[in-house]
Formats: sequence, C-alpha cells, structure tokens
Amino acid sequence: MKTIKIGILGLGTVGTGVARLIEEQRDLISAKLGAELDIVKIADLDIETDRGLTISSDRLTTDAYSVIDDPEIDIIVELIGGETFAKECFERAIAQGKHIVTANKALIASHGNDLFEKAAEKGVDIAFEASVAGCIPIIKTMRETLAGNTIHNLAGILNGTCNYILTKITTEGASFEDALAQAQESGFAEADPTLDIEGFDTAHKLAILNSLAYGMKINLDDIYVEGITQITLDDIRFADEFGYSIKLLAIGKMTNGAVEARVHPTMIPKTHLFASVNNSVNAVGVHGSATGDIFLVGHGAGMLPTASAVVSDLVDISRNLISGSGQRVPYLSFLSHRMNELSILPMDEVTCRYYVRFMAMDKPGVLSRISGIFGEYNISIRSVHQKDGGDECCVPLVMLTSIAREKDIQQALIDIEAMQLIKGKAALIRIEE
Amino acid sequence: MKTIKIGILGLGTVGTGVARLIEEQRDLISAKLGAELDIVKIADLDIETDRGLTISSDRLTTDAYSVIDDPEIDIIVELIGGETFAKECFERAIAQGKHIVTANKALIASHGNDLFEKAAEKGVDIAFEASVAGCIPIIKTMRETLAGNTIHNLAGILNGTCNYILTKITTEGASFEDALAQAQESGFAEADPTLDIEGFDTAHKLAILNSLAYGMKINLDDIYVEGITQITLDDIRFADEFGYSIKLLAIGKMTNGAVEARVHPTMIPKTHLFASVNNSVNAVGVHGSATGDIFLVGHGAGMLPTASAVVSDLVDISRNLISGSGQRVPYLSFLSHRMNELSILPMDEVTCRYYVRFMAMDKPGVLSRISGIFGEYNISIRSVHQKDGGDECCVPLVMLTSIAREKDIQQALIDIEAMQLIKGKAALIRIEE
Repeated sequence: MKTIKIGILGLGTVGTGVARLIEEQRDLISAKLGAELDIVKIADLDIETDRGLTISSDRLTTDAYSVIDDPEIDIIVELIGGETFAKECFERAIAQGKHIVTANKALIASHGNDLFEKAAEKGVDIAFEASVAGCIPIIKTMRETLAGNTIHNLAGILNGTCNYILTKITTEGASFEDALAQAQESGFAEADPTLDIEGFDTAHKLAILNSLAYGMKINLDDIYVEGITQITLDDIRFADEFGYSIKLLAIGKMTNGAVEARVHPTMIPKTHLFASVNNSVNAVGVHGSATGDIFLVGHGAGMLPTASAVVSDLVDISRNLISGSGQRVPYLSFLSHRMNELSILPMDEVTCRYYVRFMAMDKPGVLSRISGIFGEYNISIRSVHQKDGGDECCVPLVMLTSIAREKDIQQALIDIEAMQLIKGKAALIRIEE
Repeated sequence: MKTIKIGILGLGTVGTGVARLIEEQRDLISAKLGAELDIVKIADLDIETDRGLTISSDRLTTDAYSVIDDPEIDIIVELIGGETFAKECFERAIAQGKHIVTANKALIASHGNDLFEKAAEKGVDIAFEASVAGCIPIIKTMRETLAGNTIHNLAGILNGTCNYILTKITTEGASFEDALAQAQESGFAEADPTLDIEGFDTAHKLAILNSLAYGMKINLDDIYVEGITQITLDDIRFADEFGYSIKLLAIGKMTNGAVEARVHPTMIPKTHLFASVNNSVNAVGVHGSATGDIFLVGHGAGMLPTASAVVSDLVDISRNLISGSGQRVPYLSFLSHRMNELSILPMDEVTCRYYVRFMAMDKPGVLSRISGIFGEYNISIRSVHQKDGGDECCVPLVMLTSIAREKDIQQALIDIEAMQLIKGKAALIRIEE
C-alpha cells in the first residue's frame, strides 16, 4: 500500500491531536484513502514532555527546517501559529515543493494572498479547513459545495471563547471577568485572551470566508472589528426582554457591489438558530442564491475537532497525490485570474437597526432632546424604554431604532453624549434579523 | 477553455433547476472550475412545455437513450426518479462509460450496491449529493470531511413534507389532513404523499447515510420504518408540556457492533437544535469520534436547492475529468474491499425511553394494573399524567418510561390493550435526548 509521508511542525494541543488521530485511525483512514498516512518527523521546541504518543523519539526534532527539508516528506502540517516563524516555514516548504496543511488563520488572513501566489508557482497544494471554525467543513462547503451559487451573505459565531463568555453571562448572570476566568480554567481561552475577546481572531476567519465566498483577495485590514469587552449584563437582560440574544458575529454581506465585513456584538432574534448555539460551539450561516440559507454547527476549537479538520485536509491532499490531481480546487474558490475586484464597504455606510442605551438623568425633557438629535440625523426611533437600575444620578434609557446609517448614528451619539443630562458613553449594539 | 459536455435525463422541477443554474451561472462556474459546463442534450417525455430555458429546442429529445449513447457527452444527470426506467438508464450509462450525477435516493438505496460495483468495473464516477437532504452537503461531509472519524451515531430530519406537516400541527393546531393539504398546495408534498408521510423516503436516505457513515453495504430492507400518520394534536401538546418536540427522525446508531437503523416520530427536547428546524427545512446531526456533534441545516428539497447539489456534483466530476483523477473518493466512503460486515440491530433489541398514551376508563385500579404489567416486563415508569380531554368513556393517561427494550414495551402494550378498562390502541412515541 502506498504511504503518504507527513511532517508536523508544532506539537501543541492541535499537533498532538493530529498525531494521535493519525495513530489511532490508521486502519480507518487507509480503508477510505487506500494509502497510509505516516508521520515521518515532528518538530517542536519541547520534545521532552510525554504527550502519550507512540511515535518513536528519533522522529522528534527541535529543528523545524530539518522537517521541511526532508526529501522524503510529501506534506507539511504547520501548527506553529503566529505570523513570523510560521511564515518562514511556510515559504520554505513552498520553495521545497511541499504541500501544506495549516490551522493558522492569522497567517492566512494576513499573508494568504502572497503565499497562495507563491504556492501556485510551485504547484503546491495548501489546505486550511482547520483555520476557520474547527471541525465545521465551511471551507470545503464554500470552495466546493456552493460552486453554483452567488453568495449573498454569510455570518458566523467563529470564536468559542467569546461565545462561551456571552453564554455564561446570559445564562448564569456571571460578570465578564468571571466568565473569562472560567473560560481560561476550562482551557478555551488563552492566558492572553486579547485576540479572542477583542474580535481579532474572528476577523481573521471572516477575511478568509469573505475571500472564498465573494472571490475577492483576502482583505483583513478593512474589516471593522469590535470585541465583547463592553457588553454588560444589563444589556444582555434588556436584549432578552426585547426577544434578542447577543452574539459576537462575523458578518460578510454583499451590498451594492461592495462587501460589508464587520465583527461586532450583535443582537439576533432568540428564534434564530444562532441563538441556540451556546458555550464554545461555533456556527456559520451562508445564504446562497440557489441554496437559500445553510447552517453548519459544531466545535470550533479543541484538540480533536481541530485535528479532525487537519486530517481531512491531509486525506484530501493525499488523494490529489495518489491521483496526480494537484491544485484540483483553487485555493480561494476562484481561479486566481478570475477573482473579483471587490472592496469592503466603509463602516460609515453600513446600515442596520440599533440598540442604544444611555445613562440619563431622570428629568423632564431628556427624551425630547435625544429624539430631537436622532431626528436631525434622520434616525427613526422604533421604541423607547426607561429601565429600572442605574444609580442616584441616572437611569438606563434604551432605544431601538429603525434601519439607520452607521455614520449618522455615530454622529448622533457624539452629540447626545455631549449633553449634560447624559452620563458617560452610550452602549450601542447592532441588530440583525 | 475546456468544455464538459452534459446530458440531462428528466426535465421536471429539479431538471429545469439544473438547466437554469448552469445557464445563469455559466461565468461563475467557469471562474471556479476553469471549464464550461455545456448541456448538450436533455431528454423528457414532455419537450413542448415552455420552462423558460434558453436552451435551443434541437437539444431536446424524448429519447433518453439518444442522450446516454451520445459519444460527445461526458456526464449524464439522471433526474427521472423511480427505480425502473431510471435503473435501465443508469446501467446503460455505466456500460457506455459515462459518469453519472443523480438525485435518485430510491434507486441508490435499493440498487446502489449493484450499481456501484458495475460503475467501479467501468471506472465511472457516480455522485449523489442531491439524493439526501437537498443542498445540505452531508454526502461530501461523510465521504471527505469525517475521514478521520469513527461515527458513533447520526440522526436527521430528512423529509420536508413530514417536517412541514408536523410544524403546522404544532404551531397552528392544524389537523393532519389540513396540514397535508397545505403541504400539497405549497408544492412540498406529492399528489400521492405515501412515500413521504409513511417514512419510506426518509428510510431511503438513512440507508445511504448509514452506508457512508459505517462503511456497510447499503441496507434498506432491514430499516424499521414508521410514518407520521398516527401523530395527533393531543400527543404534540402533551409532548410540549413535557418539554419535547415531535419530529420524524432517521436514526443510525452504532450499538454493540450492530447498527440501529430506524425511522419514526421521535420526541426530542425543545432545547435541542433539531427542535428549531421547522417547516420544510432539513437537518442532519453526526457524532464523530474526533469532531463530537456536527449539525448541518438547510433546504432538503425544492428546485434550486436540489439543483445546487447536482451542480456541485457536476463540478466535482468535472474536476476529476480535467485532472484525470476519476474515482478519487470511494462511492461509499470506504474502498469496496475494505467495507465492514455490519448488520442492522433487530428493532426488538433497540432500547430507548418511551412516551405512551392510553385511553383509559377513569376508574380506581387502572393505574395499578397498567403499572403492574409494565413491571412484569421490567419497564420502569418515570412519570404518569392523567390528562384532560377524552370522551364520556375514557381519559388520556400518559406515561413516560425509563430506558426500556422495544420488545418489552411492545409485549406490555399488547397485554395492556387487552384490558377491558383500556379503549383502542395505545399511542407510542420514542424519546431521544
């Protein structure tokens, strides 16, 4: 039986999972593939820790380049993470004509355009299913299943840590800090959770999905990003009263020939499927012109779910190797010379409905002055609710708007926050139906 | 640019959708595939009706064989349906070395083993994504994405008509007959809805999914099938009070080295994702050893959703043609000589929890005698509820059991139904958490 030779860079959680899965499912994989996956070498700075693998120690090395340069190896699995050394390894592997499987969303989002160009020159396959939403087959679905569809919009819950935190606040009334601490204890959240809770990790994934969906170059820089650190228990409770859940969503939407690309906390109806996606689970919804709405739900992170995606990519590239069909599917859905010149719609021009909460002095005339300012900016108020809570000085005043323009609402908030009757900054959460 | 020549058999709803999609998305598809899909010929008994297609009339024929035998054609799209003439066409196409895309679940479920064997001999690709759950990419997910996973169980809402009817009864209190009539008016249900409402269509799809998941030969005959015609509004309301929704589920589960394969109305917790899958929407859940639970949700029928699946298969086979990588993925996930010898667990041996409703005379001693019989068969009762309703003679008596064996519950029901205090047959609905 043919053997496909694999080298793994990085033996952290996912790397260990990949090695374990290949060991444990050797028979199953060969029964499907007609070939064996053989891990020839693994590189990691720490090769002393026992990870419970049966791989012999002479296959472990601290020298990543010795793995990449090994002429025996067919496919490199890059699980180093980050954008510096991983990028060097990536480029070296391409130069060596090695096919690559990666889970590195930051690298693909920031340098994918360049890397794919280099890979194409060398006839190298790059697979990255594990980079977005773990074991959910959204990359394959975008690249292959939706081949006959114009994509109208996509949305996703793409960060397990944020979804876990929002779920804990919603269901247990936990504070943001406590929920984050729990996520860290459970192993979902990193010691430095900035990439997750500030929305950057979600933005990396959105940049990749938008490219696959719309045939545009990967564009990370122009994505609007807002994390979940400003979400309060009060806002979650008020949202609940109005029939909404709050989720950190990635939204990619085709609007007037440009692509909306934004990551922010979003109020969605409690009846929407996304509202029942809780804890660290991820979900992606895509609206195709022929399919209508499709939803994929599953574990977006964790050792084995992510390893499952890596192994499916390994099997995919192995099939290409066996049948001599390299680069069978374009990296980013579209052939490189047939991609679309698309730009991201400036956030100022995005329109949606808004939830706005002010802390306002409980005095006559406040509402009239706020609604006057909204009126000046052409923003219709759909409902106003004075809520219990607050302090001696101020009470929460919640407004839900009709569809308005981002630029207008931001300007209105500046004017309103300047009023003496208003304390601090307003809370603003976008609403999507 | 290379052109892939296609012949379509059957110009009903789906056939028209496929022709439309290929026409409308010519540019998009070629931008992804690097080749054009060209419909060379379409066969249908009715070539007079105007279906709004731009295809020239000299490409239409009433002679299916002239399409199959056309040496120019690379891929045959079989959308005739049924198991007689479609099978003849299938075999003729295989004999001619033509690759085939089909949406015909009945044919694959009943004759797939034989057809795949013949196709393998001739080196012919067969793709059937559209045969299960419309545009939901469950075949691709099973065959490719889950390559490294042992599947533990799968479950699906696989028939849009049944789900529509159950939704109408649940949300509008409609009668079964009215809900069915509405489904027929809306175009979901066939004039003869037997295949749908009696569960056979769902069984066809389950036979295919079980084979893909467990690497077993397609086995339709041993699937336990129960439709939705016995479901009453009362049972749906009682289920709701206990926190359950009723869905027609296909269940394929590995249990003690055999595969449970059953189609029946099922009570599932209202918090389960399946409970929010309503109207004609389909959903499939799979539990893989590495992935954990994955859910895919989308339109399981309809012109364009089904056409989308057919087109994705056409693109897939076209990629094989372009890269010379035919039969790149085994038809049924596993290489034919590596499939597993698995049989279906006899229904008698299945265990689950049960909802049972009797119509019982409101007399002392009834409960004691029923629970006595359950006790004899080793069935624990978790709760008992006497409900309002019924007639002068009898009241509904609802019981929820602990996990019990199917054989025992069936025997107990026979004994209980023989009691003079019980009127008619008991309603029995299986519960899955």
